[in-house]
Formats: sequence, C-alpha cells, structure tokens
Amino acid sequence: MWCKKSFIYKFKNFFNLTIQKKYSVIASVLENANIGENAEVRGWVKNLRVQKELIFADVNDGSCAQKLQIIIPKELKTDALTYGSSVHIRGKLSKSPRGQLELVAENVEVLGPCVVLDGYPFNPRTTHPPEYIRQYIHLRSRTNYLSSILRVRSSITKHIHDFYSSKKYLNVHTPILTSNDCEGAGEVFKVQPDCEDTIKAMMQDGKDKDTVYFGSKTYLTVSGQLHLEAICRGMGNVYTLGPTFRAENARSRLHLSEFYMLEAELAFCYSLEQLQNHIEELLKYIFIETRHTNEADLSLIDKENSKPPAWLQKKFATLTYDEAQDILKKKKVVNTENGLNKEQELALVDYCNGAPVFIVRWPKDLKSFYMKECQDDNTKVEALDLLAPITGEIVGGSLREDDYDRLKSKLPSDKLNWYLELRKFGNIPTGGYGLGLERLLQTMCGITNIKDTLPFPRWPHNCSM
Amino acid sequence: MWCKKSFIYKFKNFFNLTIQKKYSVIASVLENANIGENAEVRGWVKNLRVQKELIFADVNDGSCAQKLQIIIPKELKTDALTYGSSVHIRGKLSKSPRGQLELVAENVEVLGPCVVLDGYPFNPRTTHPPEYIRQYIHLRSRTNYLSSILRVRSSITKHIHDFYSSKKYLNVHTPILTSNDCEGAGEVFKVQPDCEDTIKAMMQDGKDKDTVYFGSKTYLTVSGQLHLEAICRGMGNVYTLGPTFRAENARSRLHLSEFYMLEAELAFCYSLEQLQNHIEELLKYIFIETRHTNEADLSLIDKENSKPPAWLQKKFATLTYDEAQDILKKKKVVNTENGLNKEQELALVDYCNGAPVFIVRWPKDLKSFYMKECQDDNTKVEALDLLAPITGEIVGGSLREDDYDRLKSKLPSDKLNWYLELRKFGNIPTGGYGLGLERLLQTMCGITNIKDTLPFPRWPHNCSM
Repeated sequence: MWCKKSFIYKFKNFFNLTIQKKYSVIASVLENANIGENAEVRGWVKNLRVQKELIFADVNDGSCAQKLQIIIPKELKTDALTYGSSVHIRGKLSKSPRGQLELVAENVEVLGPCVVLDGYPFNPRTTHPPEYIRQYIHLRSRTNYLSSILRVRSSITKHIHDFYSSKKYLNVHTPILTSNDCEGAGEVFKVQPDCEDTIKAMMQDGKDKDTVYFGSKTYLTVSGQLHLEAICRGMGNVYTLGPTFRAENARSRLHLSEFYMLEAELAFCYSLEQLQNHIEELLKYIFIETRHTNEADLSLIDKENSKPPAWLQKKFATLTYDEAQDILKKKKVVNTENGLNKEQELALVDYCNGAPVFIVRWPKDLKSFYMKECQDDNTKVEALDLLAPITGEIVGGSLREDDYDRLKSKLPSDKLNWYLELRKFGNIPTGGYGLGLERLLQTMCGITNIKDTLPFPRWPHNCSM
Repeated sequence: MWCKKSFIYKFKNFFNLTIQKKYSVIASVLENANIGENAEVRGWVKNLRVQKELIFADVNDGSCAQKLQIIIPKELKTDALTYGSSVHIRGKLSKSPRGQLELVAENVEVLGPCVVLDGYPFNPRTTHPPEYIRQYIHLRSRTNYLSSILRVRSSITKHIHDFYSSKKYLNVHTPILTSNDCEGAGEVFKVQPDCEDTIKAMMQDGKDKDTVYFGSKTYLTVSGQLHLEAICRGMGNVYTLGPTFRAENARSRLHLSEFYMLEAELAFCYSLEQLQNHIEELLKYIFIETRHTNEADLSLIDKENSKPPAWLQKKFATLTYDEAQDILKKKKVVNTENGLNKEQELALVDYCNGAPVFIVRWPKDLKSFYMKECQDDNTKVEALDLLAPITGEIVGGSLREDDYDRLKSKLPSDKLNWYLELRKFGNIPTGGYGLGLERLLQTMCGITNIKDTLPFPRWPHNCSM
C-alpha cells in the first residue's frame, strides 16, 4: 500500500545519504553553504575576470541557474583556464564583501580546454539571440538561455508527476506505435522497417511494405486518449506524458513535428465543470511549484517573469463558443473559416485581461466523434479549449460519449470496435484533456518560438542529430 | 532555487486539500479509515456473494490492489448488480467480525451493467492464464493480474523520477525521431508522412519519399545516449526515460518492437566502479521503494514475491568478461558465437546464487565505437553488462571515449561529427548506461513474458489498437 509518510521519511534519508559524496553539485553547495568548510566543485567557466593578484571565475555545472564565484590566486592560473573550459576546483567556502558565497581555490585543474577561435560559437558576457543559438543544437545547452529552459522543463515534468501521484492517478505508458489512424486527419507519419532483408524475410501473400512487419499499417501516435480510456475503464483515473507526432507541412512559432502531450482521463466525470476545476488546479499547481523551484531560471529566460502572473490568484473565466463569437464580432476580429483561428484565440485572452479562458460548448461539427452531445442542445458537444497568453489554445478536452448505441452510430472505422466495446461492460462516464507541454513552457516562460522549449526540436526540413 | 523543505510542506498541504473531495478512491479510504464515518466509493464489482439477508460485494477502483468489502442489504439489490458492473456506493464505514474495514451500503447505484454472457471474457473467482488475458488487450486492465502489474509499473516510474531528482539529475526528453542510424545495426524503423499530398507538396529535386519531409532519412530512436551526452557536456548529470524501438524479426519472451529504456549519463565519471556503484544504488532504491508502495500488488502477481530477494542486502558481484568465460567453460555452457547468449547469462546469474552480477572489461570488437579503451589493455573496453535473474542482461553501460582524436578515428559516419565536436570545447569524462524498464519489471515481479509488463505491447505481426 502506498504510504505517504514513510515515503517522505525514506526520501529524506535517501537525500541526506547522497550529499555525503566526494564533490557536490553547485545547487547543493549553495543550499548547504557552510562558510569555512572545504568544498570541491566541477563545472564550466562562464566568465573570467583577471585582476592584479586574483582571478575571478564564475563557474556553473548545470545543476542550477546560479554561478559560483571562484577566487583563484594568480599562481594557480594556467593558459588553459579560459571561458568555456571545464574545471575541477578544490578550496574553501568564504563570503565576499557583498555577502555572496564564494569558493577560494586551493587547487585548479582544467579538464577540457576551450579555444573560442577554434570554432566555439558562444562568447562570454554576450546574450546571443535564440535564432543564433538554434543553429548549434548540439552545443546550445552550454548557453544560459537554453540551460535555464531545460531546467524548467525538467522541473515541470517532476511537478506533473507529483500532482497526479498525490491524487493517486495511474501513470500509463500509452504506445507510440498504433494502428489507429482516424484521429490524425491524414497528418500522420507511417512506420516501416528500414532493412530490406527484414521486409523480404517477413513478406507473405497479400502484404505490402506498409503492413508486412506488424500485419497492419502502423503510424506514430497523435494522441494517447483512446488508449487511456481503455485503462480508465478498468482502473480509474489515469494520465500519460509523452511524445506525439504530426506530419503537417507547417512551419510556425507554435508547431513541431514531435512534441510532448500531457493527457489525463478522469473516471466518473459527470460535468465539464468538474473537468475545468481539475485543469485549473493542475495549471496553478505547476505554475506555483515552478516559481518555487526555478525562480532564477524564470527571470533569466525573460525578465518579465520576475513577478508571478496576476491571474494565478483568480478563477479562470469561462465563455461558451457562441459568447466568444459574439465578442469577436464586436471586436471585429473575424474569421472566414469555422472554429477559432490563432488571432481570435489571442483576442479572447486579451478580452479576459491576459488571463486563461475556457471556451466551452462547441459546435458538434468542429469536434471529434467521441465527444458527448450537450443534453439541452444536440448541435453542441461538451468540449472545452483553454486559451492562454502567447500560444492561444493550450488545453483541449471533453466529456466522452458514454452511450454505446450513440457512439456506435458515430464510429469512424471498424478498426475502433475495441473502443466501442469498452462501453459494453461495466461502463462509466469519463472526461479528459490534452495539454501541450511545449506551449505550457511558452506561456509560462514567455518563449516566443516553440523550437526553444525542448532540447532537440523537429520540424519540416529539420531533424538534425 | 530548488527548496526541498518548502516543497514537501506544500506538497502535504496540497494533498490534504485534495482529499476533501466528495468521493474517495479506495486507497484513500483504506489509509484514512475512520469507523462510523460516511463514505462514498465508485468502482467495479470483482466478486459477489449472496446470502439470506445480505449481499457481500468486493469492489475495486484501480487505486490499489485491495478490494473494499461492501455490505448490501437485500432490498438494495437490483438485477444489474452483477460481477463486472460499475457501481456508486454510499454508506458508513464499519469493521467486520474479523477486523477488516467494510462499507455498509445505504445507497447502491449501478452505473454500467456487465452481461458476462454477452461476450465479457473474464469470470469471477477465476485466475485466467496470462496468455488468455493477452487476447483481450483492450479489456485486460480489468483483471487483477494486469492491473497489479500496471500499478507496479506506474510506481517504478515515480521512484525513478524521485531517485534522480534527489540527486539533482536533469530529466531530458531525448527525441524519438532521429537522423542517426549507426547504432541500430540495421534494425531500425524508418518514418515518412503517410499523406501523398503532403509528400507531393514538399517534393524537391534530389529528394525521395524517405527524405522529403525532414530533408534527411529519419528513424525511430534506438537509444537516447548520444543526445544525452550532448546535454551532459553542457549541464552535467542527465537521464531520460522513454520509448525506444527495434525492427527485429524476433519473437521471444524477452523482446518487443517498442519498449521503455531508462538511460543516464554521469558527468565527471572516471571509473567503471563509480558507474557500478550508482547502478547498484538505483536498482536497490527501486526495489526497496516498490516493496513499500506495492507490497500487495507484488504478492498478487506472483506469490514468490512475498519475500524481498536475498541479494538486496548484499553487494553485487563483479566478473571480468574473461573470468565469466572461464566459469562458463568449466560449467560446459558454451557458445559458438561471440559474446554471451541468454543461456550463458542465466548460467552466470546462477553461479552467483541468483544475484545480479556485473560483467566488465569486454573485448573491444563486441562493443560500440564510443566506448573507452582500457588503459592497460587496448583490446578491451571499459564496458559493463548487468545480468539479472529471469531476463539475463538488464543494464548495459560504459565509460565514453573522451579523447577527441581517438574518437575521430573510430567514428562510423560523418553524420556524427556533432558527437565528435562535443569533445572539442570544455570536454569532460562521462559514463552512462541504459536499463530496460520491461526487463526490470520481469526480474522484480517474476513475469515470464515481457508482453505482460506494459499496457499495449507491440511485436512482429502485432500492433493491435
């Protein structure tokens, strides 16, 4: 049985144990700083100031945004000790005249030199623009900007797992490979073995290259929702966090070919309001926790982040789709196509003073087959989009059609008979949503281009590394 | 900055907040059981015993292995209340004559009936064999066996994140799509857009279907290691947990086409011993924590799991590759091919009394180009395999070649120039490993067939759902 108290106790003990190692990461040195004690750190020189008798080196090891100032007596300086080099420093912790923690070096070892003139693309005391940094994907984690984003991304991931764990949600690893194609609207990637010998060896009558390996055409997932529903109808509340794929030919600051989606399915979910409250709680939890764990990173990514957004203290607004359209007409932000385009989404966020806003009760024709019709209006479905600053849509969700016969009449393919059959035995009402992790990072950190929210972005014409 | 104390405090507050909801999952009811209090649960009837005046229903909602016994007065019984039906029960918590917590129902609502004769494949009071359950992938989370395995899998995932978080390792989302093909030894899947219109629209001179979308041939990842190394050389210790792929034409109880790999890269890693100690600590942490959180699940999956394995108290053994070969010769477990086959791996575990054993210092020809040569013998590399009961190899790792020129001479493809260049600027010694999550589950739980360790297994000729 899951026992929180013993878990936290053990976790603490475990933690104490691990800090008794030989050297410490800088985050730990800063947390447990004891002036006068010996310390040993390893990292990279981010800045170097040479004075008469002393050299000041700012060293960072990736464990936090902060740099530890190292005081190096001139006799310990070697030619290899430059900006960008990796170093191992032994010394004593001290306090600077300004009260800042610093390490007075007694031994300096340069592990790997860095000759900037030999092609290193970054310079000290320089804020390189994100477009420039993006040209050096393999080296860009060495910049302050990208390393802070990657730390925030790692923390958000942790907070997501903690949120669901505290609510006893099951973490389900939904598959990347799937034989379902009906959700991608044609924008899917297909998968085949690369090796011709494997294909030949497996070839049977009536099979082609697309179907020979798995026995059916196989795609990269566009959503884990249908799979989550299968587990939810046996085990209750579930979530998944993992990569999903779109083969769109679209290049924009908001689109990737491979991106992370957080999806959850709530068992015994009877109303959109129940789903909205849960989503609002999740988002506020992630925002608040991340401000605690990564304050320095957030400020470093964008100075605008130094204050928490005002909407954290307020209830999210809700508009019906029809109300939203009325507002947009009055604002003269119109759209010749159905649904809401990006400009309209951002206009609605603006209308709500820059706070996230739920758009609910969507026209049935604009949404997927599995969404539940509104009881009082069968032209509408119990669907929601959550719109947020910078990105517009950040969450999409709905109550699911739980009536066997009604779902049967709307099923787009016989391949989904398994999905229909979930409703046949011990059925329950469920609702769920998907949240784009990269867009969450954009909104939280003020990152204009989605390609800077993850370590190895993939988009049309680019799959480097 | 990451602040553990405030985090745990906030986490607790958050947790208290969430249990004030209207109904509780059964795991919470059992934890906070207050006899005499009102309670409300929702779940599925796993067993039903009808007596003269009372009906006894065992209800489970997936939140834990335990079932809550519900006492239902006969007048509340309806025809729909059967094995497999989903129910919403309101009542009062009480204690059975045997001291067991039970819920005396005051209101019983059947949410979804379950007509076994209408094709429901499972029966009450029956232990269905795993091969039978596997035929009903979409329904199998409704069985005790598979739901316990999925809970253990979810817990292990949580413990893994907690382990690395306590050590301040960065969680990196390495990409699924990659243009690297050199590690898969030909056994890779390739990826293309499915839509012919997209392909036509993007087609340019000199491109074919394989390269048109990304500009280079694109594969599903076989390992995140090389990408991890890029981040490790800018930010220190890193790990990743996610799906990897093999397009092998092999059907066995140990192979899948899509499986999860935990990979970590240790910055400033100077010796195999340092790596071994870390791997041993990780494995023991996961085993010990999971026994705490999922004791009932472990016993339910396999009665042999009721006791922790004896080796948890001991240091893992280490054998060099040459020593291992000598032992196998003496035992007459021979192999016409190079390396160790499955029979030999298990014979070595057996030689170590069923405890995990590290095999170190492998012949260079058997291992990958990026492994560091042993200083005292350049025919060997600083590589390790960890062998475990049931599965044999469960972890593979090595120190990485950190000498620029030596790596350059061994680089299998120009496409990997970025990997070489990581060593050019501020280089550090690193080492890392990959651990198969499904094989860990097999070893921990005594699961013979790997297809039962994850919710939606994919193997040659099977990608159902």
